[in-house]
Amino acid sequence: FIFTGSEIYGGLQNAWDFGPLGVELKNNIKNAWWKRFVSGRGDMAGIEAALLMNTRVWEASGHISNFSDPLVECVECHHRFRSDQLENDKCPDCGGKFAEAKQFNLMLKTHLGATDEKASEVYFRPETAQGMFVNFKNIIESTRKRLPFGIAQIGKAFRNEITPGNYIFRMREFEQMEIEYFIPKPESDADWEEHFEDWRKEMHSWMSYLGIKPDEVHELDVPKEDLAHYSKKTIDFEYDFPFGRKELYGLAYRTDFDLRNHGEKSGADLKYKDPETGEEYYPHVIEPTFGVERSVLAAMCSAYTEEEAPTAEEGETDMRVVMKFPKWLSPVKAAVLPLSKKEELSSVAKKIADDLRGSMTTEYDETQSIGKRYRRQDEIGTPYCVTVDFDSLTDKKVTVRDRDTMKQDRVEISGLKEYLVKNLAE
Amino acid sequence: FIFTGSEIYGGLQNAWDFGPLGVELKNNIKNAWWKRFVSGRGDMAGIEAALLMNTRVWEASGHISNFSDPLVECVECHHRFRSDQLENDKCPDCGGKFAEAKQFNLMLKTHLGATDEKASEVYFRPETAQGMFVNFKNIIESTRKRLPFGIAQIGKAFRNEITPGNYIFRMREFEQMEIEYFIPKPESDADWEEHFEDWRKEMHSWMSYLGIKPDEVHELDVPKEDLAHYSKKTIDFEYDFPFGRKELYGLAYRTDFDLRNHGEKSGADLKYKDPETGEEYYPHVIEPTFGVERSVLAAMCSAYTEEEAPTAEEGETDMRVVMKFPKWLSPVKAAVLPLSKKEELSSVAKKIADDLRGSMTTEYDETQSIGKRYRRQDEIGTPYCVTVDFDSLTDKKVTVRDRDTMKQDRVEISGLKEYLVKNLAE
Repeated sequence: FIFTGSEIYGGLQNAWDFGPLGVELKNNIKNAWWKRFVSGRGDMAGIEAALLMNTRVWEASGHISNFSDPLVECVECHHRFRSDQLENDKCPDCGGKFAEAKQFNLMLKTHLGATDEKASEVYFRPETAQGMFVNFKNIIESTRKRLPFGIAQIGKAFRNEITPGNYIFRMREFEQMEIEYFIPKPESDADWEEHFEDWRKEMHSWMSYLGIKPDEVHELDVPKEDLAHYSKKTIDFEYDFPFGRKELYGLAYRTDFDLRNHGEKSGADLKYKDPETGEEYYPHVIEPTFGVERSVLAAMCSAYTEEEAPTAEEGETDMRVVMKFPKWLSPVKAAVLPLSKKEELSSVAKKIADDLRGSMTTEYDETQSIGKRYRRQDEIGTPYCVTVDFDSLTDKKVTVRDRDTMKQDRVEISGLKEYLVKNLAE
Repeated sequence: FIFTGSEIYGGLQNAWDFGPLGVELKNNIKNAWWKRFVSGRGDMAGIEAALLMNTRVWEASGHISNFSDPLVECVECHHRFRSDQLENDKCPDCGGKFAEAKQFNLMLKTHLGATDEKASEVYFRPETAQGMFVNFKNIIESTRKRLPFGIAQIGKAFRNEITPGNYIFRMREFEQMEIEYFIPKPESDADWEEHFEDWRKEMHSWMSYLGIKPDEVHELDVPKEDLAHYSKKTIDFEYDFPFGRKELYGLAYRTDFDLRNHGEKSGADLKYKDPETGEEYYPHVIEPTFGVERSVLAAMCSAYTEEEAPTAEEGETDMRVVMKFPKWLSPVKAAVLPLSKKEELSSVAKKIADDLRGSMTTEYDETQSIGKRYRRQDEIGTPYCVTVDFDSLTDKKVTVRDRDTMKQDRVEISGLKEYLVKNLAE
């Protein structure tokens, strides 16, 4: 699914490359999210903002002055650590003392333009959210949306984490799926709480759609004293990863802080004019945030299953590993497997695979025993294996094996595509 | 479709944000390309490599030493220019003299990790191609592909262009769709020429699918003396943009240069073992490259049409602007328009829009006259407008207007989705 980035040159500090299966899995998640939360809704506008933004955006948002981790360096071995993650005040590597903690800004900096002057210093965005806020006026004017409505975006963000790690859990280059949902100015807490509650349910429903079981997710109501100064309520959705219970998604009520702040600092009019009362005000915001790679990782963890299963030998069983992804999520939907490499079977099987490929991701595999090939498809979560045997040449039928039940159906080749499309949609 | 990036803060050096229509258009192109060239073919493996790669990749590929433009600075006004784009040797801004030209590397540099040492200096990739080459071994081992086969990728790349411009034509942050198609070691020129010709045709077929007319595209056979040292043949596909004939796509035969070079410099075994003869060698490569934003721009230019059309007034005509996108490409597939804002019509129309949204991108619009709303949809290229009128309440039918012919069909509401899906697929 996923390879070490730049592997042949020794990798690069927790950078990862998505392989053929990983990229299908990731794209399935992104496309399903977009369909569910953007194009499938009437109250949403999608955007894709540039990764590089004007530095004034980060001055206004507070990222330049505040988006930092406390960093300490050991005076003996010069190794560096996040001081808020250390359990005591001696270096865990050599036992040495630490110098005083420094604030270390997490944004990746680069230079644009053919000069080395300060003016061209720019940052790669550390979050997608600001792209939605700075485009609020453009969206209102071009779509004439009325409150409540959301602006949604999928895209990369970058954080120079002091300690990235846990596979694809914490990376310096990562992807977010994020919504800023703008609501009318609340008259009372009940007004924003209603929208907050809607999104809380939507997020649970999405996690369940991803194949995540309800008991693997835990809501952490962020305590008042830990909330950002502009947030009145934040929930972290934590998932039981193999390396511990960690944040998967977040949901925050950000009040009208962001639009007010950007309106005041840019001088642009970011107020909303109520079409009925004519009142002008800064809308309030509910922000559901979904990490793309964390979605991939949680979906993989939830799908991973080891179970006793019959082998090709009558009456014998052994352990099989099977990725029980929801069918829509599986990177490969069907595998076409000729029982032998003989030309008379493989030519029929290749034709079937070519025909299916227009409608679903399809693999063709003719190497090793059929039992091994079934297990190989189980390991990548392929819902259906289609076997072409010698009977297929005369009865024009193939055997379709279900990943989860391992039951086999004999299906007419002429109706195979329809059979699979129907079953995949269930 | 597209907004100035960071617009409320004065923009950022030719950075652009895709708005709700632009992002649908771009995603339609990327998804169609992926389906056509990756998941729809049996001889292709998709990947998505990290944007940040180990610096040794760029040392090996020659980007660190050679990926540069000649830069000159005026000694009077200190403005800077690409010397190869200047027509004479005086500053075009003030008439001053130039200092000697310097080579200016086009890669965006940043620092990773909590140190300021040289070791953590890394580059954002200036092209997607190297991601495929460095993953060649991983792909061969995980997919057991046989030659010929391709590795494909869609993703961002970054170039610190001295003179970006022409809207989204030349940006510092852009996106590529690229294939490295690996072929057996050619015995003669005819062997690679056959694959090259296949891809040349595939690229023309794709451009036609995008709605680009054949007479808008011109092949430029790059002269031998201008070829990169590793390329035996390169074709630029040039498009007649409003600002001139400029490169849209490229197709290059890169010999076995890349795999050989990375194999030798990384020490990894990047050879392919022929499963029949057992011979081990570096495969040769045909590289078709497609710019995402240039695809968007060319598709928009080709679709843009001004034509005389009847107005709502009997017998009168005026000019209409209509984006004649191929239907699959249109960002919005259907617009549902109640004839008036009256609750009895709008409630029916909203219900129809909600129902369509699960199957296609759908807009709902109730403001201004129906004639103005038709033109508004023409301007964004919506293939079908669905009008709900007072008769709809009794005959349960709606009027469907075709964008191109402007003909109107009366269609049962109960069969509307099926009607549209069928017509959109044509």
